[in-house]
Amino acid sequence: MSNQKILIAGEWKNSRNPEGFFSSRNPVEKRELPDKFPISSREEILEMIRAGKKAADELYSISPEKMGDFLDRFAKNIEARTEELVEIAHLETALPKDTRLRAVELPRTTNQLRQAAVAARERSWARATIDTKSNIRSKFGALGGPVVVFGPNNFPYAFNSVAGGDFASAIAAGNPVIAKANPGHAGTTKILAEAAFDAVNDTGLPKATVQLIYHMEPEEGLMLITHPMIGATGFTGSRTSGLKLKEAADKAGKPIYLEMSSVNPVFVLQGALRERPAEIAEELYTSCSLGSGQFCTNPGIVIIEKNEEGLGFLNLVAEKFKENKPGTLLSSSGPKSIADAVATLINAGAELLVGGKEAEGPGYAYLNTLLKVPGDTFLNNAKVLQTEAFGTVTLFVLSESADEMRAIASKLEGNLTGSIYSDKVGEDDQLYKQIEPLLRTKVGRLLNDKMPTSVSVVPSMNHGGPFPATGHPGFSSVGIPGSMLRFASLHCYDNVREHRLPKELRNKNPTGKMWRLIDGEWSQANVTAYQ
Amino acid sequence: MSNQKILIAGEWKNSRNPEGFFSSRNPVEKRELPDKFPISSREEILEMIRAGKKAADELYSISPEKMGDFLDRFAKNIEARTEELVEIAHLETALPKDTRLRAVELPRTTNQLRQAAVAARERSWARATIDTKSNIRSKFGALGGPVVVFGPNNFPYAFNSVAGGDFASAIAAGNPVIAKANPGHAGTTKILAEAAFDAVNDTGLPKATVQLIYHMEPEEGLMLITHPMIGATGFTGSRTSGLKLKEAADKAGKPIYLEMSSVNPVFVLQGALRERPAEIAEELYTSCSLGSGQFCTNPGIVIIEKNEEGLGFLNLVAEKFKENKPGTLLSSSGPKSIADAVATLINAGAELLVGGKEAEGPGYAYLNTLLKVPGDTFLNNAKVLQTEAFGTVTLFVLSESADEMRAIASKLEGNLTGSIYSDKVGEDDQLYKQIEPLLRTKVGRLLNDKMPTSVSVVPSMNHGGPFPATGHPGFSSVGIPGSMLRFASLHCYDNVREHRLPKELRNKNPTGKMWRLIDGEWSQANVTAYQ
Repeated sequence: MSNQKILIAGEWKNSRNPEGFFSSRNPVEKRELPDKFPISSREEILEMIRAGKKAADELYSISPEKMGDFLDRFAKNIEARTEELVEIAHLETALPKDTRLRAVELPRTTNQLRQAAVAARERSWARATIDTKSNIRSKFGALGGPVVVFGPNNFPYAFNSVAGGDFASAIAAGNPVIAKANPGHAGTTKILAEAAFDAVNDTGLPKATVQLIYHMEPEEGLMLITHPMIGATGFTGSRTSGLKLKEAADKAGKPIYLEMSSVNPVFVLQGALRERPAEIAEELYTSCSLGSGQFCTNPGIVIIEKNEEGLGFLNLVAEKFKENKPGTLLSSSGPKSIADAVATLINAGAELLVGGKEAEGPGYAYLNTLLKVPGDTFLNNAKVLQTEAFGTVTLFVLSESADEMRAIASKLEGNLTGSIYSDKVGEDDQLYKQIEPLLRTKVGRLLNDKMPTSVSVVPSMNHGGPFPATGHPGFSSVGIPGSMLRFASLHCYDNVREHRLPKELRNKNPTGKMWRLIDGEWSQANVTAYQ
Repeated sequence: MSNQKILIAGEWKNSRNPEGFFSSRNPVEKRELPDKFPISSREEILEMIRAGKKAADELYSISPEKMGDFLDRFAKNIEARTEELVEIAHLETALPKDTRLRAVELPRTTNQLRQAAVAARERSWARATIDTKSNIRSKFGALGGPVVVFGPNNFPYAFNSVAGGDFASAIAAGNPVIAKANPGHAGTTKILAEAAFDAVNDTGLPKATVQLIYHMEPEEGLMLITHPMIGATGFTGSRTSGLKLKEAADKAGKPIYLEMSSVNPVFVLQGALRERPAEIAEELYTSCSLGSGQFCTNPGIVIIEKNEEGLGFLNLVAEKFKENKPGTLLSSSGPKSIADAVATLINAGAELLVGGKEAEGPGYAYLNTLLKVPGDTFLNNAKVLQTEAFGTVTLFVLSESADEMRAIASKLEGNLTGSIYSDKVGEDDQLYKQIEPLLRTKVGRLLNDKMPTSVSVVPSMNHGGPFPATGHPGFSSVGIPGSMLRFASLHCYDNVREHRLPKELRNKNPTGKMWRLIDGEWSQANVTAYQ
């Protein structure tokens, strides 16, 4: 048992006058792990902010190549500590070591860091725009203050506040990061922060480019994200916490990017139900149970027509929910919060078909849970019936008609994803055409004949969507280089002498590969028309 | 004297049960103009919202070419009514018919509409991104609900809610607009709305693509922008109103883009003061007095060193402020609000050098006003001393040292622009290098040896900046195509069958000219790698 240090102003230090300590818990054995992590005081948070601001000022004159070197080195340092990381993340989250942690999430994380390194060096992300006649030039650039990152509990590496997508995006855009660990995997976060800080030292970045605290009182969190020296905030977590942070940041005029909640509706049209019910039932169950249902893109609502095929499909799915044992949940709060959500759904008129209670056995677990509700009941109480249950809990909405299905699509809240399954022979074409435009404005990513849980890290990805799935419908938290734009300001230069411009805006293309919009055309060339 | 109609749900109609009427005033003769414009009731605002939402749904399947045709036709309709428009705008705002209204602002407005038409047709604005391996494709697309536009009082055409930059951007991105007229030029707005609605009919767009109300009670404004069917809001106006709208929109999770206030600091470095004081004084006065100082980019604060050259320069500027007569202000509230701001500056320690009171004569006017304040006084009360006075009012900050100048740069709030004047022989180079990074994070557009009041409508323009100048540091309200992205959501398609994709994301480039990011490279080609 030992008191852990925080990473503050370029040093691992004991927390001064901590407000208390906490430990991560092992979700299988339901016991506290030995390490004690401090709850930081306002005084040391203010110290971090000042150190972060100083680092932001210093980073202004540090080359993107160096940021790239840091990100690459960090990825390498993570790989060097794979065994340790897999061990501790498994202990803290109960996520399977293989394949999930070792073969899927860890490589995804280092891949994101390396993609960010490439993007930082190549610089096209900055969308440099040059108009030669007026000699006005602009590009996206760092915010001028540190980015605060709050990571969620469900991806100990890939969305970790000190190694995940927000971290990589913020750093690649030239900002320091103040990471707030998720208390569910503080030990994992500590090792990742060590690997990051080693990379900071190895590559000679300002030492406060990466800082880490484990916990703080809620009012200190609000102080942190609204502080005048802060650049922006990235948050992935619950809607309740997200909305509180959003309100404070909005009021202070500080950008905040949130990923808060999503029930990821799946429409299965009649032709598809007839054509391949077993195949779709299998895909659905796999998607619902991935990560014990604790994915932001978990399909929480399935909309079908209530008829023979529909009910047959529902039975197939119910079988799978029944016959499979649930996985261990991430934390002690899991079963309770799922039970609350299920109770909310039932109170609002949903009928329980499978599961509906905590699972027996050693770890935190909740039975795979399936519910159904008639379409008109859903329409009459749509907001409550879209309550997210963070686990393998799925609500079938049984619609009386195609008309009602369209009405249901219109009543959906903002979501990360929405899927439509359709047949291959064209019977579903008309209804697809009607539902698609309704769903389009409600979701960030629209899928066709595909379940939503796979989130590829490619430039075209949108892991975002309309409120309340996120705080803004124009940004994605996954997909480099787009995700970097969240942590950047638009910097315009008017009549600035060429030698005073950032390299990205000078006549010579700084990398020979950087894409720039010159006089309205994307180009990798030097600017020649101007003087 | 006649009661004017509103443009609602595709018809010019009398306001039902209006909450009252108002008239625009002629600022020269200080008299009410004859037309009576209604203050709309909640009932009819709700009708507009529903009609706007229906139009948004219909626009989903209307081609960008048609939106372009509308914008072009609208520009032509405006030109056909030039004489009427110049007459009424001059009556309502006192802005000079020539060259300002006829030769500058009206052509700028039609030019913006035509640029938006080109952008809509060409489609590169949508930043289509295609990854062929994963078959994920995304682009920006319409919001799915109408955009509410509030126009300011100072540009009756170019920022008009029914013809200006926000309008053009929102329409070109595929959204209907609900325009809220600025009460200062309701008659001008009426003619522009007529020209717009004629173009709607000429080109066969959904009739509620353009709607117009003149006024409403503040609580109805909040209801309007937070309504679930609304897409987003664009606002240009005062900080007080802007912050109220922002708070409501933020809470409802509705995007809002604001341009609220800016004092546009100008640093004149020592070498430049020595080298060309008379030239810079002339440029400064011209910039300060443009539009009677009622420009969002008006230089409200000038920072110089307090020494012989600095004081000599201040005298030169003071002469110009003294010897020139002020122009007529836009409205009756002008002199009062300037007087309040000047009193605030004086109470905070500024010393009045020139002007400081309402001007005599027939129209609303306030004497050109110059103030000064010592650098340390500014630093001790920086927030209040950055109060914007919307007129020809400029505060000189006299700094004791280069160090103090840097401290002043650090204390600036978010601004649209910031300028640095430097000499041509290199004496100012070192200080420029120190001040530039500090100023960079505070402003949207950084100028070198140039005053801020000219805002070119080019893609590289940033007419935006950090809070409180605007609500988000990553967006510009001027400069197509960038300004369109404010009124768009990121639409991602995952595994969607090709014939179901929007044309912009199919394999064939829909215009042959559209730039798309295909597998990480910008290209105008068709997609060939995929299948």
